[in-house]
Amino acid sequence: MTDFLFKRMTLIGIGLLGSSISLAARQKGLVEHIAVHTRSSETLARAEELGLGDSYHSDLGESVEGSDFVIVCTPVGVCEAVAKSIAPHLAKGAIISDVGSVKGSVIQQMQPHLPDYVEFVPGHPIAGTEQSGPDAGFAELFVNRWCILTPPKGTDPAAVDRVEEFWTALGSNVERMDAHHHDNVLAITSHLPHLIAYNIVGTASDLEIVTNSEVIKYSAGGFRDFTRIAASDPTMWRDVFLHNKEAALEMLGRFTEDLTALQRAIRWGDGDALFDLFSRTRSIRRSIIDAGQEIEASDFGRHLKEGETHAAKLASDDHEHTGS
Amino acid sequence: MTDFLFKRMTLIGIGLLGSSISLAARQKGLVEHIAVHTRSSETLARAEELGLGDSYHSDLGESVEGSDFVIVCTPVGVCEAVAKSIAPHLAKGAIISDVGSVKGSVIQQMQPHLPDYVEFVPGHPIAGTEQSGPDAGFAELFVNRWCILTPPKGTDPAAVDRVEEFWTALGSNVERMDAHHHDNVLAITSHLPHLIAYNIVGTASDLEIVTNSEVIKYSAGGFRDFTRIAASDPTMWRDVFLHNKEAALEMLGRFTEDLTALQRAIRWGDGDALFDLFSRTRSIRRSIIDAGQEIEASDFGRHLKEGETHAAKLASDDHEHTGS
Repeated sequence: MTDFLFKRMTLIGIGLLGSSISLAARQKGLVEHIAVHTRSSETLARAEELGLGDSYHSDLGESVEGSDFVIVCTPVGVCEAVAKSIAPHLAKGAIISDVGSVKGSVIQQMQPHLPDYVEFVPGHPIAGTEQSGPDAGFAELFVNRWCILTPPKGTDPAAVDRVEEFWTALGSNVERMDAHHHDNVLAITSHLPHLIAYNIVGTASDLEIVTNSEVIKYSAGGFRDFTRIAASDPTMWRDVFLHNKEAALEMLGRFTEDLTALQRAIRWGDGDALFDLFSRTRSIRRSIIDAGQEIEASDFGRHLKEGETHAAKLASDDHEHTGS
Repeated sequence: MTDFLFKRMTLIGIGLLGSSISLAARQKGLVEHIAVHTRSSETLARAEELGLGDSYHSDLGESVEGSDFVIVCTPVGVCEAVAKSIAPHLAKGAIISDVGSVKGSVIQQMQPHLPDYVEFVPGHPIAGTEQSGPDAGFAELFVNRWCILTPPKGTDPAAVDRVEEFWTALGSNVERMDAHHHDNVLAITSHLPHLIAYNIVGTASDLEIVTNSEVIKYSAGGFRDFTRIAASDPTMWRDVFLHNKEAALEMLGRFTEDLTALQRAIRWGDGDALFDLFSRTRSIRRSIIDAGQEIEASDFGRHLKEGETHAAKLASDDHEHTGS
């Protein structure tokens, strides 16, 4: 008998998410054995140096053998290939999950290949930083962040409960949702923000009348805020847009429509239209802080007023975990 | 004889910028007397409670009488009215400056009304937070931030030097620039970022298929980064767009053009185009950190890895002030 939630967990991919899961699961004593697979032998060696696993596998099939929990932590574009490769090696009753930022496509890619005797519980922790790779991980990444599970119809509820228990133990609040709705929610809260951040950084780089060094020098006027998410992993984000096309295009269409209205307001000097929008966007930040999803300190805590305590303190420290 | 840089400084407007200048100038012992004017009697009373001045004036003309340094810290839309009102009351040899985010329009609005016997040195400290009002100010706001001066042709160089000395004493690095170029630089580094941040927050609020509470709940996926600058002062920003129309529309046009190309890449599944952009935007953040204009810690220091020191530590702490 053991207190472990899972006996053997395989992490396929050991970037920011995979390494953070490893560190957090180890810290909380949730799994007995962590098996690590990644395609790159260099990254695998680095994971071993960092002690992120108990065993290290360059062979995908071998990595999942005997595991009761498998989490795919790769860019979403390779999910189908991963599912095909691991399928014949999966243990009976194993739970297969992932951390992909899109869920409809992941289900479409993976489900047809998985055997009937495993349970598939797709997941998405809404957590990350602009860093990537196995060195970027840290155990606290998921604390007080939401993790969304999108189990397809017919998934054993007991398997979903166990995955929920896992994420709750890592500090997350867990929500269950339809995959299609997830993809719409994330298109506006995450995918579109990344797209326009990437885009404005690109636009700024390409200007002839303003030099790159001027953009860098005077970035404190607002631009620098966008560069954070525009520094995110390119492969991961390419795959997000290729695999959440419909929702991304829908949100982008609405954004552009609204931006065109603003452009018109500027051109025609319609101060009231500008003021109206600029006023109603203020309260949403307060709500995000109150919901424990943003730090309280102004300017992301970059500046501290005299006597102010630690800027990076999460507003959420004052909140109870609400866990669903 | 005195060591003060100015004998009597008038601050017209006592919001985030005005109050920060007051606190910083006092801390550094730069001025003997600070006269405060603001239109709202409530704000004036609050400024007095906070001890932001040595005298408080509801009458604009009176506030500048006998001052050798006047800084207009109002939204840029009222600069012309301010210039008209103060002109007859200005002392011979007084230096008139401002902190407006656009410079061409401020010069156009103010210069024709100012008497020949004063010196006009428009300025723009690239510093701020999403907070506003007299309570928002703090003395360290300008430390290691750039301040751009755009003196019109014919301004006495000695007056420009004194204003530079003032900002340098507040901790800023000072740059001189043509007003037109300033307006282009700020259109991309500050005005466009604010516009698209306001816009995406508006777009998200208006969705029918995703609720506001979902947007708030899952904002850690990227959206929350945009809400900071979308919480900035609405009057100030309305005026910026009304008064830097040409440059704002030019940058917005380029942004939209680039975004349309991205939209097309998503629609047609052109992963290479997406990957190319997403790769080349990464290095610019590193450059901003290296230039001391952004904090080093990942995720704006919202998360701290174990053993990491204070997240809000400015990367710039490691850099010498370079001051021009």
